[in-house]
Amino acid sequence: MSEKIIVAIDAMGGDNAPKEIIKGAVCALKENNNIKIILVGKQEIIDNELKNYDLKSYENLEILDAQDIITNDDSPTWAIRNKKESSIVKGLNLVKDKSADGFISAGSTGALLSCATLLLKRLPKISRPALATLLPNLNGVSLLLDSGANVDCKAIYLEQFAKMGSLYMEHVMKIKNPRVALVNIGIERSKGSLLLKEAYELLGGSKLNFIGNIEARDIPYGSADVLVCDGFIGNVVLKHTEGLTKGLFHMIKNELNKNIIRKLGGFLAKSAFIDIKNKFDYNKIGGAPFLGLNSIIIKVHGSSNYNAIKNAVKQCVGFIESDIIGQIKDFPGE
Amino acid sequence: MSEKIIVAIDAMGGDNAPKEIIKGAVCALKENNNIKIILVGKQEIIDNELKNYDLKSYENLEILDAQDIITNDDSPTWAIRNKKESSIVKGLNLVKDKSADGFISAGSTGALLSCATLLLKRLPKISRPALATLLPNLNGVSLLLDSGANVDCKAIYLEQFAKMGSLYMEHVMKIKNPRVALVNIGIERSKGSLLLKEAYELLGGSKLNFIGNIEARDIPYGSADVLVCDGFIGNVVLKHTEGLTKGLFHMIKNELNKNIIRKLGGFLAKSAFIDIKNKFDYNKIGGAPFLGLNSIIIKVHGSSNYNAIKNAVKQCVGFIESDIIGQIKDFPGE
Repeated sequence: MSEKIIVAIDAMGGDNAPKEIIKGAVCALKENNNIKIILVGKQEIIDNELKNYDLKSYENLEILDAQDIITNDDSPTWAIRNKKESSIVKGLNLVKDKSADGFISAGSTGALLSCATLLLKRLPKISRPALATLLPNLNGVSLLLDSGANVDCKAIYLEQFAKMGSLYMEHVMKIKNPRVALVNIGIERSKGSLLLKEAYELLGGSKLNFIGNIEARDIPYGSADVLVCDGFIGNVVLKHTEGLTKGLFHMIKNELNKNIIRKLGGFLAKSAFIDIKNKFDYNKIGGAPFLGLNSIIIKVHGSSNYNAIKNAVKQCVGFIESDIIGQIKDFPGE
Repeated sequence: MSEKIIVAIDAMGGDNAPKEIIKGAVCALKENNNIKIILVGKQEIIDNELKNYDLKSYENLEILDAQDIITNDDSPTWAIRNKKESSIVKGLNLVKDKSADGFISAGSTGALLSCATLLLKRLPKISRPALATLLPNLNGVSLLLDSGANVDCKAIYLEQFAKMGSLYMEHVMKIKNPRVALVNIGIERSKGSLLLKEAYELLGGSKLNFIGNIEARDIPYGSADVLVCDGFIGNVVLKHTEGLTKGLFHMIKNELNKNIIRKLGGFLAKSAFIDIKNKFDYNKIGGAPFLGLNSIIIKVHGSSNYNAIKNAVKQCVGFIESDIIGQIKDFPGE
């Protein structure tokens, strides 16, 4: 491993590939001299796209040719076997071989998670890696995990998610003694499925700052720093946040356009809306790490623009500097 | 049964009982001469509260004394056995005995649903009754069911929820050929848990207008009229809608107060915000019926004000006039 942090990026994944992905990589390189980026994808397409940029030096940028692309229509298990020349498989292999310190993709979530689980090593005490997404709230952000990797969970997985999430919020987000909660349909310990009741007992007996159950209505108020749930619930909360936020802004826009006075009001208040929209903009947050593996894998939103890629590179550097993998490996305090 | 529609109301349930409950009942009576209301609760408290109103005639208002109250802290199963003099148990018995056509309560959801399931008859083809909540969206409303009654579900329950929901939207909300969807984490039929895959097959083979899976991000856009899911997911979506909507308005208020120009903008645009807030105000919607029973039971939000009670009475009348129970009993077209 060179002294520079090496970040591999899937140049072909996502709705805005390769244009925005490559723009994001170039921006990240311009901002940080201590990184190297490997763009993984179709060489000729990447070469062509790079012609648009006036990079002073290309010594920090490499291309790894990958002629295949896994699409959202491919079954992940089929793709792993049949698309070995894809940008996702080749990018993950870079990380596996220690030729890169992390891999970022805006491609198919299913394919990325399945391939990563199959190709990369899990950390010793982790049964199932989890997708960990930062969710904006009134006071800052909470970490929601699992936000989509494991539909079926055991209580012990939820306990592991809680521990990983707590370490993440402490070491990466610098929150002291993070408050950990289980997403449930009531705050009483007797609420919810058998899975949640078991997880409640496990977490109650742990050394985490477990504050009990949280109802979905309290999530936006930032009542917990780490929101623990199975990947189905997490994915529903994540996508509902995205849809409802956008939907409400849509409604506000429609209502403001209904008469001239409202329009004027909307014009004067515009910067307030922009500030809130920015808070919920996944492009500003970056991506979601897949925690529990012996490597750094970051999934960025399928509709990511260059800013998301740039910020995901920053996140990747932050993960390495905070040694989040080492923290999870050690599970201190247990 | 008299010719008038008789609605029983739990005068003691909810955060704002008995004041707002009784105010709601009085307002409903003033608006509609063809109904009779039975307030169920502590006689002396109700009598005292009624002194605040100048009701021309009390012939349409009765009180049924119930000296006990089931609280949110009581276990529902314990309460059924030990609180027979409670407003919920006595109110449900009124409906059971056909002394009332419907019962409305803002009390403990768990207790209301458990007691109703135990005391009242299920309709012949229904395995599990479901709480059906109207969820506002960009274009109107969708019906979310189950929104909290059944944490653990079988595929056949989801199929029944779908059928009941479709009938509700058709006959009560007058929507032609309602679009029915399963709430899932992806739109492909292969997505989600085994439960959801099985339900997908059942619904695909039914005569419903089944449009497949819907992701939570599309719920606020009104992409389906009937949203089918288990009671855990439904409750999460319901409470998250409430929390995120409130949270976003909170954020908007904070941002608008940051400088004088924004404040002025907010002032001019105020009516637009009020219109959207009204759309999401559960007090304006009324309550959520517990579908699948041989009686009309309506759960209203614990924080309901008089308006919610008044609107729930209206809903109750609408359910009787549209004969939703008869519709579900017959499951036409199957």
